[in-house]
Amino acid sequence: MSDVAIGIDVGGTKALALLVARDGRVLGEVNAPTPHDDQLAAGEATTRVLANQVQTLCQSLHLDPASIPIGLGLPGMMRRDGHLAFAPNLQSASGAELGVQLASLLGSSLVVVDNDANCAALAEHEWGAARGVRDFVMVTLGTGIGGGVFIDDRLVRGQSGFAGEIGHMVVVADGAACPCGGRGCWERYASGGGLQRLMLQAAREGRLEELVRARGGAENLRPEDLTESARCGSSGAQALLGEMGWWLALGLSNLSAILDCGHFVIGGGLSSAADLFLPRTREALAQLVEGYRARPTITVATSLFGPRSGAMGATLVAFERLA
Amino acid sequence: MSDVAIGIDVGGTKALALLVARDGRVLGEVNAPTPHDDQLAAGEATTRVLANQVQTLCQSLHLDPASIPIGLGLPGMMRRDGHLAFAPNLQSASGAELGVQLASLLGSSLVVVDNDANCAALAEHEWGAARGVRDFVMVTLGTGIGGGVFIDDRLVRGQSGFAGEIGHMVVVADGAACPCGGRGCWERYASGGGLQRLMLQAAREGRLEELVRARGGAENLRPEDLTESARCGSSGAQALLGEMGWWLALGLSNLSAILDCGHFVIGGGLSSAADLFLPRTREALAQLVEGYRARPTITVATSLFGPRSGAMGATLVAFERLA
Repeated sequence: MSDVAIGIDVGGTKALALLVARDGRVLGEVNAPTPHDDQLAAGEATTRVLANQVQTLCQSLHLDPASIPIGLGLPGMMRRDGHLAFAPNLQSASGAELGVQLASLLGSSLVVVDNDANCAALAEHEWGAARGVRDFVMVTLGTGIGGGVFIDDRLVRGQSGFAGEIGHMVVVADGAACPCGGRGCWERYASGGGLQRLMLQAAREGRLEELVRARGGAENLRPEDLTESARCGSSGAQALLGEMGWWLALGLSNLSAILDCGHFVIGGGLSSAADLFLPRTREALAQLVEGYRARPTITVATSLFGPRSGAMGATLVAFERLA
Repeated sequence: MSDVAIGIDVGGTKALALLVARDGRVLGEVNAPTPHDDQLAAGEATTRVLANQVQTLCQSLHLDPASIPIGLGLPGMMRRDGHLAFAPNLQSASGAELGVQLASLLGSSLVVVDNDANCAALAEHEWGAARGVRDFVMVTLGTGIGGGVFIDDRLVRGQSGFAGEIGHMVVVADGAACPCGGRGCWERYASGGGLQRLMLQAAREGRLEELVRARGGAENLRPEDLTESARCGSSGAQALLGEMGWWLALGLSNLSAILDCGHFVIGGGLSSAADLFLPRTREALAQLVEGYRARPTITVATSLFGPRSGAMGATLVAFERLA
């Protein structure tokens, strides 16, 4: 039984690898951009990046990459057998057996995979902002929106392992186009990518003139520019983040209606700016949730591990299935 | 242990009472309109109707109303303690303790209550279209849309017992106004009430001219007129039912994304017209569900008990909690 494991959260834009002890202590961390190289066989470029991360982490503690349990958190629909069936935000790896490829490259038999948001939910439930909470939904705000649904102290997997694809819940019938092929998905309005879209739209409508001028054009705007500008007092930037907060509340409200969920944990990269949109989210919930006053309070917490919760949880999957 | 029970499905427009044996055989049935009398204390008029139904059913088999287990299925948010916390489609009874009032009127201590769609889900799972199915969602199309969510062979209750309020999932942000106080709820597009709304809108746009003429005005149109007209070959009526079928698929698709649910059971009054809209629903699912081709087939079945499943399930609740 291993007392350390590696967890890697493979996102649409970057991969975060952590070396973690069984009690949750983080012993090492490596970041790398996720390659988008469609020339290579699906997933090959990504696999090489991950293998390098594993080797770097192992070197630091003189560990053998072939004998350490490794968990991968992947964005998209993971089958229970570990096959990545569909990943709109990681097109180059969709359908690839990243876990199998990584194991082969490392000469290891200790690689397991799971959905990234499921991993985040497991980490927050074990060590973080949902410790001791039997029913909650983990909502990760990254390139898209990922989800992990806990009911009665257990992660809901669904018939094929695809449960928790909450970002592709349609909230605007026939709305904005989504990389998944659908229209009006929640993540087009309330994720990092959604914020980017709202921002471009606002810039085109002349609502962010100062910021657009400072960045030399609307096409150069990134969500980070908006949050920075909001912190410096820009009312236009603050209003736009509030707008995103409202959209976040809309989806949470839908989840409350369906599951009567009283606790949400907000994670993913964008959660570092939670102070700029969660107040609006909490306020909007009171208007949006059916029979709000007849329910106990609905709590919306930020993830304890922020952008690290996916990688943290991936180690939990590795510990639980391999150690 | 009683070998018969009474189940009453108290809907927004009528109450259906059934006398049912433990093995699911229906031994008696009484229908009555639900009163909408705001002059009486909340729920009092409704309670009197239900008491009459119980007495009628008992007389037929010479049973004592005070000694027979009775289950009520109510539309809206039921607390686990049986309190009806919020019922947008049964305004006169919202907040009333219908079960307590009925028990008092009958001199009985054997009255239990549950959400009507939860009841329907229990009945279909025990005796009907979801027998042996561990994961499914019951969708009842009546005045609104009710839901019962089964995961791992168990009905999901949620923190307060309010789970399954799927009709109030918002699918059109800032869309059509809903009696719940919200806007754009799924049930404004895909229930009997939703069909009525779509129908009035189509009539105003001149899309149902023949039907409007035949009924002497758009305001006289009922969903039954539309289904009858569709069965007689009216392409306008058929198109409108297809439109409702598409909206139904949109909500099912959202539920699939969140829960990875592979089986739906469609019940409620409108399910008697399922042949007119379900083909479009099944077709639309293939377009709307994220990664549809990567999933096993999603089945959409009609309820085995149709408009009776709520009352059938209410007897199950009575058998299980009282017998």
